[in-house]
Amino acid sequence: MTTSWEYRYAQRAKGMQSSVIREILKVTSRPDVISLAGGMPAPELFPLEEVEEACVRVLRKVGSNALQYSISEGYIPLREFIVEKMSRYGIVASVDNVLITSGSQQALDLVGKVLLDPGDVIIVEAPTYVGAIQAFTAYQASYASVPLDDQGMMVDLVEEKIIETHPKFIYVLPNFHNPGGVTLSQERRERLVSLARQYGVPLVEDDPYGELRFEGEHIPPIVVIDATRNGDRAAGYFKGDVIYMSTFSKTLAPGLRLGWIVAPVEVLKKLVQAKQGSDLHTGTFSQMVAYEVIADGFLEEHVREIRETYRQRRDAMLAALERYFPEEVTWTRPEGGLFLWVKLPEGMDCQELMEEAIEQKVAFVPGTAFYADGRGRDTLRLTFASCPTEMIDEGIQRLAKAIGRRIRKAA
Amino acid sequence: MTTSWEYRYAQRAKGMQSSVIREILKVTSRPDVISLAGGMPAPELFPLEEVEEACVRVLRKVGSNALQYSISEGYIPLREFIVEKMSRYGIVASVDNVLITSGSQQALDLVGKVLLDPGDVIIVEAPTYVGAIQAFTAYQASYASVPLDDQGMMVDLVEEKIIETHPKFIYVLPNFHNPGGVTLSQERRERLVSLARQYGVPLVEDDPYGELRFEGEHIPPIVVIDATRNGDRAAGYFKGDVIYMSTFSKTLAPGLRLGWIVAPVEVLKKLVQAKQGSDLHTGTFSQMVAYEVIADGFLEEHVREIRETYRQRRDAMLAALERYFPEEVTWTRPEGGLFLWVKLPEGMDCQELMEEAIEQKVAFVPGTAFYADGRGRDTLRLTFASCPTEMIDEGIQRLAKAIGRRIRKAA
Repeated sequence: MTTSWEYRYAQRAKGMQSSVIREILKVTSRPDVISLAGGMPAPELFPLEEVEEACVRVLRKVGSNALQYSISEGYIPLREFIVEKMSRYGIVASVDNVLITSGSQQALDLVGKVLLDPGDVIIVEAPTYVGAIQAFTAYQASYASVPLDDQGMMVDLVEEKIIETHPKFIYVLPNFHNPGGVTLSQERRERLVSLARQYGVPLVEDDPYGELRFEGEHIPPIVVIDATRNGDRAAGYFKGDVIYMSTFSKTLAPGLRLGWIVAPVEVLKKLVQAKQGSDLHTGTFSQMVAYEVIADGFLEEHVREIRETYRQRRDAMLAALERYFPEEVTWTRPEGGLFLWVKLPEGMDCQELMEEAIEQKVAFVPGTAFYADGRGRDTLRLTFASCPTEMIDEGIQRLAKAIGRRIRKAA
Repeated sequence: MTTSWEYRYAQRAKGMQSSVIREILKVTSRPDVISLAGGMPAPELFPLEEVEEACVRVLRKVGSNALQYSISEGYIPLREFIVEKMSRYGIVASVDNVLITSGSQQALDLVGKVLLDPGDVIIVEAPTYVGAIQAFTAYQASYASVPLDDQGMMVDLVEEKIIETHPKFIYVLPNFHNPGGVTLSQERRERLVSLARQYGVPLVEDDPYGELRFEGEHIPPIVVIDATRNGDRAAGYFKGDVIYMSTFSKTLAPGLRLGWIVAPVEVLKKLVQAKQGSDLHTGTFSQMVAYEVIADGFLEEHVREIRETYRQRRDAMLAALERYFPEEVTWTRPEGGLFLWVKLPEGMDCQELMEEAIEQKVAFVPGTAFYADGRGRDTLRLTFASCPTEMIDEGIQRLAKAIGRRIRKAA
């Protein structure tokens, strides 16, 4: 008897879906399509030579330990590096607060695994990061959405949501939001911390792009605002109600799969247990190679170069949007990161536009992918990071043509 | 208000524990302790030069794509290699049946994530692999244990367990069992497949050591026996009720974190969705480097060398056990793999023995770690793989001394 697997799946598996973005990437990998869709960092900036030299040095210096099993918490020198790096942003932590993860996607998964029971509510931004929805939905989370405006999450609406839904945590992406392109203002961060403290709701701060600010003033991470209030910062240790996460995917290379979580020691221990069951530990060799590349100050200079490149590309995209897009269309103006967010004329459907766009040989991500509740039909996400400026101009021109066609069809 | 995190944890997190083995490794990392505890492959056999050359070649040939995001299913040439490799063991699959995982620990985790609802029962061997308990317990599984004897799982007891517990699946480690050191006989494999078919219960076949047979006749994998009955083998495609998993950790290097799952296409799609939410994909660079090392037939020669080394070490351990251990103690005689299993005199407690052993500067893993139900107090696991033969002799001598002391204390 050969049976169907369908009925055997766990409840949680029923909500699992393949990421829309990953599906789109398959469609748009044709060389004649200009893709403004993927969230890929610019590959021409990857430090190929430095990685090659690091591989050789690690294998010769460390020998077989570079290929052996290692501890679940992660390679200690890399965690020390992260502690030092974060201290420059005011985050006071020790190695015991840091867990190396297999990309920040795994950080999201482990937070979900440790905290979420079926039906637990998470307060999220609308739109929010699609990978977070994927990670948390696997643990059968529900969502209470708070809209974004130009200052980030509309924090004034959060208290009502807390009272109404008793959330397990608030998930927030404060810097150069994916997909929104906006940044949470300092005033709102402080208000959010106050609310979280008042109601005892933890904050999960996802900060993959924080270092990629190419304009405007740095705003302290939520975890720093929380710690300062708590007096932890002065005390020199990491406590409180915030789980912070970041990644080397946007500053070094995503193919190494290296992210990290910073959390209070008691939560970190639980996350380490969850990680042991999930994949024992993140690749020993990848961690050592990354550390070897960045140990001597490489990253600072390198991140400056990334910022400068992305700034030019953002400028090219903003100029092209201004030049080619009809005035009914609006967009955000990011001060960093990889993405901007477009609002289409009311009533236009991003899925229908996608079909038109593919005909014009340009791709984007339909906005609906970023809503936990299926909204966002008149929105889309554009990436400026991975396209040379001249292709950005051409891509936006093609997309404008597709939008024009949809407008005429609707008329 | 700073609140305790304890009450926030998900139900599933309450059952999570740190692996006993990983804790022991911390204690036994002192250089004067002979560790027969860890499940580490012999590091002196890791192909350091080949990996170094492969890193350089991959970065020069493939360039930035080696460090970029890649597809969740895994690097296609590596999956093709696995398909070809498995075909030599009679497993007929296509690339669409193969998912690359971050070590076989992640394979276990993804199977649990996709199949297990809280309270679901898994039929396991007693003892069974501690990492599987860790992975499945995170999804709140229950266990129905079937004892091992010299022929592996006592399959005659399985039918009763199926009827009694309606299990979600049967988890079995047929070759050179960890920790048992025994191999499931062909007759029992056939009987197990019959039972699984009769009752519609899937089998999860965990085969990390299958290639490391250094004595006796190869026995076909369960998945092959199942497929042959189903007629799938002739039809040239992979279907049926078995999920098969293996790893490069014991044949190449564990620090690269590379394992794989082979499953029917419909299950594999669901596992891919689960993997996307868990870590997007396994490291691009690690996959490409591993492929570059093994693409041209390296693995066959290399595995022969591993087998020969492990055979010598097993022989040294068996000889030392014979020489030093009191006759009340018995042990298994593995035909492959890394482990053997020791039964202490009745009433002796492996935890108490552990303390005595640490004093004698030798370490093992207490048997209780490998039971889902806390049994196994008079058992322990020894690894012969990662110790030079002369240290094995010395280690067993020390352990015999510790056992002698416990016997005298009990008398």
